Amino acid sequence: MPKVAVVMGSDSDFPLVKKALELFKGFNIEYDARVISAHRTPDIAHDFAKKAVENGYEVIIAAAGKAAHLAGVIASMTPLPVIGIPIKSSTLDGLDSLLSTVQMPQGIPVATVAIDGSYNAALLAIEILGIKYPELMKKVIAYKKKLAEEVIEKDKKLQGEIV
Amino acid sequence: MPKVAVVMGSDSDFPLVKKALELFKGFNIEYDARVISAHRTPDIAHDFAKKAVENGYEVIIAAAGKAAHLAGVIASMTPLPVIGIPIKSSTLDGLDSLLSTVQMPQGIPVATVAIDGSYNAALLAIEILGIKYPELMKKVIAYKKKLAEEVIEKDKKLQGEIV
Amino acid sequence: MPKVAVVMGSDSDFPLVKKALELFKGFNIEYDARVISAHRTPDIAHDFAKKAVENGYEVIIAAAGKAAHLAGVIASMTPLPVIGIPIKSSTLDGLDSLLSTVQMPQGIPVATVAIDGSYNAALLAIEILGIKYPELMKKVIAYKKKLAEEVIEKDKKLQGEIV
Amino acid sequence: MPKVAVVMGSDSDFPLVKKALELFKGFNIEYDARVISAHRTPDIAHDFAKKAVENGYEVIIAAAGKAAHLAGVIASMTPLPVIGIPIKSSTLDGLDSLLSTVQMPQGIPVATVAIDGSYNAALLAIEILGIKYPELMKKVIAYKKKLAEEVIEKDKKLQGEIV
Amino acid sequence: MPKVAVVMGSDSDFPLVKKALELFKGFNIEYDARVISAHRTPDIAHDFAKKAVENGYEVIIAAAGKAAHLAGVIASMTPLPVIGIPIKSSTLDGLDSLLSTVQMPQGIPVATVAIDGSYNAALLAIEILGIKYPELMKKVIAYKKKLAEEVIEKDKKLQGEIV
Amino acid sequence: MPKVAVVMGSDSDFPLVKKALELFKGFNIEYDARVISAHRTPDIAHDFAKKAVENGYEVIIAAAGKAAHLAGVIASMTPLPVIGIPIKSSTLDGLDSLLSTVQMPQGIPVATVAIDGSYNAALLAIEILGIKYPELMKKVIAYKKKLAEEVIEKDKKLQGEIV
Amino acid sequence: MPKVAVVMGSDSDFPLVKKALELFKGFNIEYDARVISAHRTPDIAHDFAKKAVENGYEVIIAAAGKAAHLAGVIASMTPLPVIGIPIKSSTLDGLDSLLSTVQMPQGIPVATVAIDGSYNAALLAIEILGIKYPELMKKVIAYKKKLAEEVIEKDKKLQGEIV
Amino acid sequence: MPKVAVVMGSDSDFPLVKKALELFKGFNIEYDARVISAHRTPDIAHDFAKKAVENGYEVIIAAAGKAAHLAGVIASMTPLPVIGIPIKSSTLDGLDSLLSTVQMPQGIPVATVAIDGSYNAALLAIEILGIKYPELMKKVIAYKKKLAEEVIEKDKKLQGEIV
Repeated sequence: MPKVAVVMGSDSDFPLVKKALELFKGFNIEYDARVISAHRTPDIAHDFAKKAVENGYEVIIAAAGKAAHLAGVIASMTPLPVIGIPIKSSTLDGLDSLLSTVQMPQGIPVATVAIDGSYNAALLAIEILGIKYPELMKKVIAYKKKLAEEVIEKDKKLQGEIV
Repeated sequence: MPKVAVVMGSDSDFPLVKKALELFKGFNIEYDARVISAHRTPDIAHDFAKKAVENGYEVIIAAAGKAAHLAGVIASMTPLPVIGIPIKSSTLDGLDSLLSTVQMPQGIPVATVAIDGSYNAALLAIEILGIKYPELMKKVIAYKKKLAEEVIEKDKKLQGEIV
Repeated sequence: MPKVAVVMGSDSDFPLVKKALELFKGFNIEYDARVISAHRTPDIAHDFAKKAVENGYEVIIAAAGKAAHLAGVIASMTPLPVIGIPIKSSTLDGLDSLLSTVQMPQGIPVATVAIDGSYNAALLAIEILGIKYPELMKKVIAYKKKLAEEVIEKDKKLQGEIV
Repeated sequence: MPKVAVVMGSDSDFPLVKKALELFKGFNIEYDARVISAHRTPDIAHDFAKKAVENGYEVIIAAAGKAAHLAGVIASMTPLPVIGIPIKSSTLDGLDSLLSTVQMPQGIPVATVAIDGSYNAALLAIEILGIKYPELMKKVIAYKKKLAEEVIEKDKKLQGEIV
Repeated sequence: MPKVAVVMGSDSDFPLVKKALELFKGFNIEYDARVISAHRTPDIAHDFAKKAVENGYEVIIAAAGKAAHLAGVIASMTPLPVIGIPIKSSTLDGLDSLLSTVQMPQGIPVATVAIDGSYNAALLAIEILGIKYPELMKKVIAYKKKLAEEVIEKDKKLQGEIV
Repeated sequence: MPKVAVVMGSDSDFPLVKKALELFKGFNIEYDARVISAHRTPDIAHDFAKKAVENGYEVIIAAAGKAAHLAGVIASMTPLPVIGIPIKSSTLDGLDSLLSTVQMPQGIPVATVAIDGSYNAALLAIEILGIKYPELMKKVIAYKKKLAEEVIEKDKKLQGEIV
Repeated sequence: MPKVAVVMGSDSDFPLVKKALELFKGFNIEYDARVISAHRTPDIAHDFAKKAVENGYEVIIAAAGKAAHLAGVIASMTPLPVIGIPIKSSTLDGLDSLLSTVQMPQGIPVATVAIDGSYNAALLAIEILGIKYPELMKKVIAYKKKLAEEVIEKDKKLQGEIV
Repeated sequence: MPKVAVVMGSDSDFPLVKKALELFKGFNIEYDARVISAHRTPDIAHDFAKKAVENGYEVIIAAAGKAAHLAGVIASMTPLPVIGIPIKSSTLDGLDSLLSTVQMPQGIPVATVAIDGSYNAALLAIEILGIKYPELMKKVIAYKKKLAEEVIEKDKKLQGEIV
């Protein structure tokens, strides 16, 4: 059974990160969620990243705001794919988090999703796992079909409303 | 043997995309490189995305500039992880490409790397494949070690220069 | 009688899009409003775009937020003029939607209006139709005259207030 | 035979605007190209806009840089659709021109294309005219097909190169 | 007695513009306040600008938002100094208004103040008039002295609070 | 005879500032040009600003780049109108200079022109002086007429070229 | 005993600045807090800066918004390190304050912290003082340890919640 | 004798960083310059930061581009003041580096200077050391005096040129 880690730089990010965890539950994926700060608990961050493979994680998601270094710090110490969620803070509307997460130098990529995009981070993790676990890929296909059906449903509902 | 697809929106992106292909060569990963435009050849893009799994691809990389929709269009029609490379064009310094690639709506993630970050896109693809192919993960570990050694070498060289 | 289509990427865009529909009503223009997602229902989007001419539409308006690809996707599969409305979302203040909509590559233009500018999108559609339908051009002239009169009225009212 | 006007704020915009004229030639569309400044020759701009219908124009394209008001000024005095091309100048990478052109207030839309997007401006004009002139719509369909073929050709050529 | 005109693009700008009028009252400067839209009432804008000198105005202040052309349009038709106030609207946090107002092309300057800076616009107008009317310059000196005293007072008050 | 001061933060700004001086020559306006740094020679800046009235200046122009404080520093110590020219430097494309110059707090306005807009700064100074010196206002009217004629000439030339 | 000065451009900045003062209290560092405006009370600002050394300050913190010149003005007249806090105001989300504070020209550095980062400004001041006062450096080490422990505590608490 | 460390993320930053080293030479300050990458050699970065105090450094300068984490990573593991130099790279004009360096979360400040501001970084370091080493403060005072004299000299030279 695949296992992922979801790391957030501050417990204030939890309400957003929660969406990712719920998606993992829905896909029956084991996860650990951790509050680890690249800046306040750097030793824990390093330890976590270095032992990620041996601890059985296959994908790591890191959410952080402002000068968002968490994803990059973890990516620098693991061969696992690291997905970064830039969190919008009280200034600059998320632009600082986005650029700090995505503009990584050559050699250390971070797979960045939209600002506050914790849901998509989880889905991306599942797509990545789907390469190895065929049943997950099937579920992704089913999930996208369901998404489509919801849109179709909303479209129908709208037709009723605007008549 | 794992296989990836690298799709670019225009042949003018090839010099940048080439870096990704060279990395794949170095890691002995099979790849196809295609010029497919989300806007000028939409049918080919759809066909390509829909058959990606059956054609044996496990990761798709899409590079595009300006209102860079290529990665998103492909992601909307495949359960595979899609990596987006925002290409800088003649105006706005890459900001348009970055935002068009990364700010995907809920349900359709694109794993975005830095502007013009084709090298990192390839490395991210390899990390993703490394979950399934243990020998690739080993190579990633070795590769990152080599990166570190190059930095150490440059540091030593600098010490010689500034004495 | 001219007919237009107004497509939105999410039903949450409807309150904004509604302004466009009301303007069409005022000008006696037939319209269809649809929820179609470029990313979640790509096949429907393609089908819609490809049959747009045969379905009798003469102008298409597409509203979407974030990495707003809807207008571009439709424009890539129809010879009709496509008007894009960038919708402001919870981050980046509309800049992502604007750039994703307007910065289209050579060959596939999208006629972009202001962020959240659904009213102007409808008016632009009417001006476009006015080339073919002379009575519409007359109505546009009358409409702009009325706009001017409203401003003049507000100016008069202000004079009363500040005396 | 349809006729369009292409207005530019400065003769230094001509090299860019030329691309639009060449496209019109290719589509056998009559055009006038004018240097008219919203700020330096406002009376001529007004006169031009007010007589645009009577002079037989059906679409107007306006190209300007920096605080690019030309398209908006013309749009305020004609019922015709006005297409705005934001021109990049020596500072701010085109962002000023784009925002000055696209962010029009309610009541006076400008159909904005990409920064320096003169080619797409012409194509959009042709799509607009195509509603009225069926032979033009056919040509647009053929043109987009040709675009696709060019991409396919480039894709084939790339396959040869990377083998 | 000097006379100024304060023009706003929409009556919704009045709450902000009011601050300017109050400052003029405090300095005993005659003013007219007008709602004139560059886009909806262009003829009135031109007429207003062309007769500004003959109507006795010595400085004109123009406030507008989004693609804020009002100040530029007026400046193009009068030899008087025109002060532009960029008004923040519901998107882009005032950046569009600022760039549309300040980035004027060579030959037609607009004296731009801060976003929503109607108070400073009025003060700048008074400083300009102070060149011609010595009593106004004296009042400006007194005013700035009073500003300083207010800051000193607040500083004293703070000392009390933080002890 | 009116006299203005043109102050620049660095002698590297002189090539740009020169355009302003040439315009003053053309209008027969006396000027002094100074290199004064708000940060490196603050005492000279203060002294200059405080004695500006007594030294016979009627308008002050200040050009500076990056965190461009020069115009604001001078404006804080003189009742004269101060015009700010934001100078583009090697990073950020002029945005830093623009915001540092224009976003002045309540009580201390700076009349800001476009980035690198030294020519317009001079013209604005002349328009300001024109309120007091009627012959200057006449010259401004003549100057704007000449500007218009140049545009008309370029328009004619273009007609010749594109036939 | 070390002494620092905290200067703010407006008393409206006090709620934010207060966080810095509280940190100083916690570290037993003597401080003065002042309202001094670079623009409204320039003479006081100069006097303050010039006498800062003789008044026993060792570090100066300056907080200001918009075209935030306060830190730069003070830095230009003292050999002491000056820390700048860019304060977010009602427009542009803090970008103007940040650029006005950080982009200082060669010769006059300002040690800039995050937008609204008054807490970090105080901590940076303490780190600076820690070079001279060994007991402060010890306290910083203890403080960072406590920060880490708080994060660890939150991580534990989260584990409880998500089980 | 005080000692500082100057760390850069890549040897390609050396030409810029060199300016800092030259200033240190001029002030007779001992320095070490190192190439250490937060991402490629994270262990060395941690080791370096943790031993910085014991190795006798009193201030650390860190220069890095793009998602510039180097200064933050070091700051997270040392009680010494850390100065960050955001380096402009090939895209986004330095904005990414600036935001990644300055927007640090509460608890871990980085004293940020202007983009590419290596010279000012060194000067700031010297000002910081000047608190402890009185002879350095004297040198800073002398240095700023010399800066002023250079500006005065340039001003004089300009007077000669424009006569």
